[in-house]
Amino acid sequence: MNAPAHVQSLRREIPPGFLDALANQFGDRFSTAGAVCEHHGRDESPYPPMVPDGVVFAQSTEDVVWVARHCHQHSVPLIPYGAGSSLEGHLLAVQGGISLDVSGMNQVVAVNDEDFTATVQAGVTRKQLNEEIRNTGLFFPIDPGADASLGGMAATRASGTNAVRYGTMRENVMSLKVVTADGRVIETANRARKSSAGYDLTRIFVGCEGTLGIITEVTVRLYPQPEAISAAICNFPSLDAAVRSVIQIIQMGVPVARVEFMDAWAVKATNAYSKLSLTESPLLLFEFHGSAAGVREQAEVVQSITRDNGGMDFEWADQPEDRSRLWTARHNAYFAGLQLRPGCRSSTTDVCVPISRLADCVSETAAELDAASFPYTIVGHVGDGNFHVLMLLDPNNPAEWEESERINRRLVERAIGMDGTCTGEHGVGLHKMEFMLAEHGQDALDLMTSLKQAFDPHNILNPGKIIPPA
Amino acid sequence: MNAPAHVQSLRREIPPGFLDALANQFGDRFSTAGAVCEHHGRDESPYPPMVPDGVVFAQSTEDVVWVARHCHQHSVPLIPYGAGSSLEGHLLAVQGGISLDVSGMNQVVAVNDEDFTATVQAGVTRKQLNEEIRNTGLFFPIDPGADASLGGMAATRASGTNAVRYGTMRENVMSLKVVTADGRVIETANRARKSSAGYDLTRIFVGCEGTLGIITEVTVRLYPQPEAISAAICNFPSLDAAVRSVIQIIQMGVPVARVEFMDAWAVKATNAYSKLSLTESPLLLFEFHGSAAGVREQAEVVQSITRDNGGMDFEWADQPEDRSRLWTARHNAYFAGLQLRPGCRSSTTDVCVPISRLADCVSETAAELDAASFPYTIVGHVGDGNFHVLMLLDPNNPAEWEESERINRRLVERAIGMDGTCTGEHGVGLHKMEFMLAEHGQDALDLMTSLKQAFDPHNILNPGKIIPPA
Repeated sequence: MNAPAHVQSLRREIPPGFLDALANQFGDRFSTAGAVCEHHGRDESPYPPMVPDGVVFAQSTEDVVWVARHCHQHSVPLIPYGAGSSLEGHLLAVQGGISLDVSGMNQVVAVNDEDFTATVQAGVTRKQLNEEIRNTGLFFPIDPGADASLGGMAATRASGTNAVRYGTMRENVMSLKVVTADGRVIETANRARKSSAGYDLTRIFVGCEGTLGIITEVTVRLYPQPEAISAAICNFPSLDAAVRSVIQIIQMGVPVARVEFMDAWAVKATNAYSKLSLTESPLLLFEFHGSAAGVREQAEVVQSITRDNGGMDFEWADQPEDRSRLWTARHNAYFAGLQLRPGCRSSTTDVCVPISRLADCVSETAAELDAASFPYTIVGHVGDGNFHVLMLLDPNNPAEWEESERINRRLVERAIGMDGTCTGEHGVGLHKMEFMLAEHGQDALDLMTSLKQAFDPHNILNPGKIIPPA
Repeated sequence: MNAPAHVQSLRREIPPGFLDALANQFGDRFSTAGAVCEHHGRDESPYPPMVPDGVVFAQSTEDVVWVARHCHQHSVPLIPYGAGSSLEGHLLAVQGGISLDVSGMNQVVAVNDEDFTATVQAGVTRKQLNEEIRNTGLFFPIDPGADASLGGMAATRASGTNAVRYGTMRENVMSLKVVTADGRVIETANRARKSSAGYDLTRIFVGCEGTLGIITEVTVRLYPQPEAISAAICNFPSLDAAVRSVIQIIQMGVPVARVEFMDAWAVKATNAYSKLSLTESPLLLFEFHGSAAGVREQAEVVQSITRDNGGMDFEWADQPEDRSRLWTARHNAYFAGLQLRPGCRSSTTDVCVPISRLADCVSETAAELDAASFPYTIVGHVGDGNFHVLMLLDPNNPAEWEESERINRRLVERAIGMDGTCTGEHGVGLHKMEFMLAEHGQDALDLMTSLKQAFDPHNILNPGKIIPPA
């Protein structure tokens, strides 16, 4: 599982005195220790670590400014690091340089409960935010599998199980505090719900994966905790029947809060990992938010659609602790899957297609995976047309890695051919760079390159990511 | 009502043969006639026309490419022109050049009713789109006052009365076909509902007001026509009571589809213009979308909140024709307002603040306007914190214009001071340029400038707009 050919870049040379200046400035908040650098040179991707030359533990925007100016002046790479939960190699120091760990910037700066907004430092995680605002009656819905940092979630345009109802980070970031490549500090917007005042700087930085600026604060939208919540599971005789149900539910305009698909393998893995006894056939996991009557009404429409598609009866999870157990199990599906093949190394994919093409895309992919030589699971935020394949590979068998890469490549080509995308929520990192040309075309990539050059003229911000080398 | 000092730019010189080449290429689809140029050198802003040197009537993306290449090569300004309904001077040819009229590009290219998307040429108007998709059971919700073109709506990040429920053009444009300054054609995205694949080119062009590229096709999200719709009016003893009701409704999380405010003057004007007999006190105009039960439930919550704030009983408009009459009247509030002072010229404002500050912002503004020497109306998409003042000025009395500008300036400063924006939906154009520094700060404006230079190195695309001269 070597890095792909296009990321075999040369490490840049660190100028003499550069690291000493960091040590002088930050004392024990700067480290060049092997273990620290190694930890910051990896993420949850299948690649071996590519280690930075040093790690700064930032505690303030001012710290970030200092590091950015220093790196800009000396053209040294700078990679923002949050929770380390990226899946596609975003955090790997392919050209060396400094990893800027913002996990210590973990203060909730402001909660404006009347306006449904919260401003947090970049290192605050989604669970921490929800814990801190619990007694306001509000919640923050975006929930990638990991307990990611809000800065990282903004940088990868993350989403999760609630996106079908509440949107992704694209829709839910109101404003960012960003340090530019040369150490200027900007606020990308204000707290007005809408604005037509100039270029959308917020959306330029959301999804930039640390390549255009360093996010130090995030202002997000919050939502009222629903008056009523109910969750249900429905099993299906086939993957196709489950996915077709979802398509019809979305097309009916039912404002379902969550609708998650798990294939039989994912259910089996989850039963074992989370000590549940779900029926091991393809299933959909629903959550409904609204008034008591509204939730009942949504559930009735959904039940009738699933029944028409051969779904079995709903199993309800109305008690908060039952719901919580189910959703925790769903969030752990990735770790559960890994246990299907102890000692394996995983490769995950993440495509998203228009909902009308979802059943075809999932079915064709499953057929191909059934013929593969390794186990796999499929789970998905299918209300958005987004699904993941987890491929469980023998780390000592390069043939399996190559086979998984072939399958991944065909899956991405299938998704792009269906007017979809090579990544719905994980981001490009290193692993999806090779598909950027097919998805966007050379002219669009050239525009992205010109944006990158305009915002980061010395190419110090997470270099070697997103845009493939020309 | 002269243009502000910062837009008194010099017209650029048109190179010899430049116009002849356009005439050769486009025949009678190119015009330098005085009346045609004058028509394309104005919009609904209070400024006198600044006329282009010629007008091309484009019929295809290929036409746009030809004109862009020609203008890029000769550094001649190029201003995209849709329905001509901009309010802030966006379309005025401050440096001369070519107005590119795309109103003839008015084909609906594709409707994907299973995916709730439509792709249209830039000149298709919002009413035309809704007419053409009526029998799909879907609708497109964004509704600025005018029957604007989708290209223009994307370019100004427009919204309207439905934004509180359905979002603005920022949330509802899925993808754009864009011609770059030098005549390349890109698609900014695909039809997947979400993507993390690189920089958000779509959101870079949404709201760029023609300064970064020329939009030739727009793919938008559609929504199911609600199963049930009901509308109601509620009068209030004071502006403050009406606005406070809205704040509470939003804070309760009621998914109201529309909630519009009109002050007593706007109601009076609307009664006269649209032949209605509404009670002439501040009012809120509501629309509820959902299932029959859901709509009833929303209305009950809202009625209880309005009653607590001294609102009178709801007057219902359940019949489609009654609803349609009411909403047509609301959309005509601008033209109705003009009739309060026959022969007047108007100046409109457009600020947006966090909802918690809305009552203060509206009240302070109304108090100041009550002391002004001219009539005014206030209307607003108050669920978003967005409102407009229409000031009715004697065109022959420069003192009134100056007074209105002073009031506008203080209103914008008030909104920015409340963490709001100088424009919620109209855009910057010429009229809001002077506030960009106060709203964004110099460093953010410098980033916007570097983006503009990267995408339009010869500064031909609608030059002299959005970013104030340094």
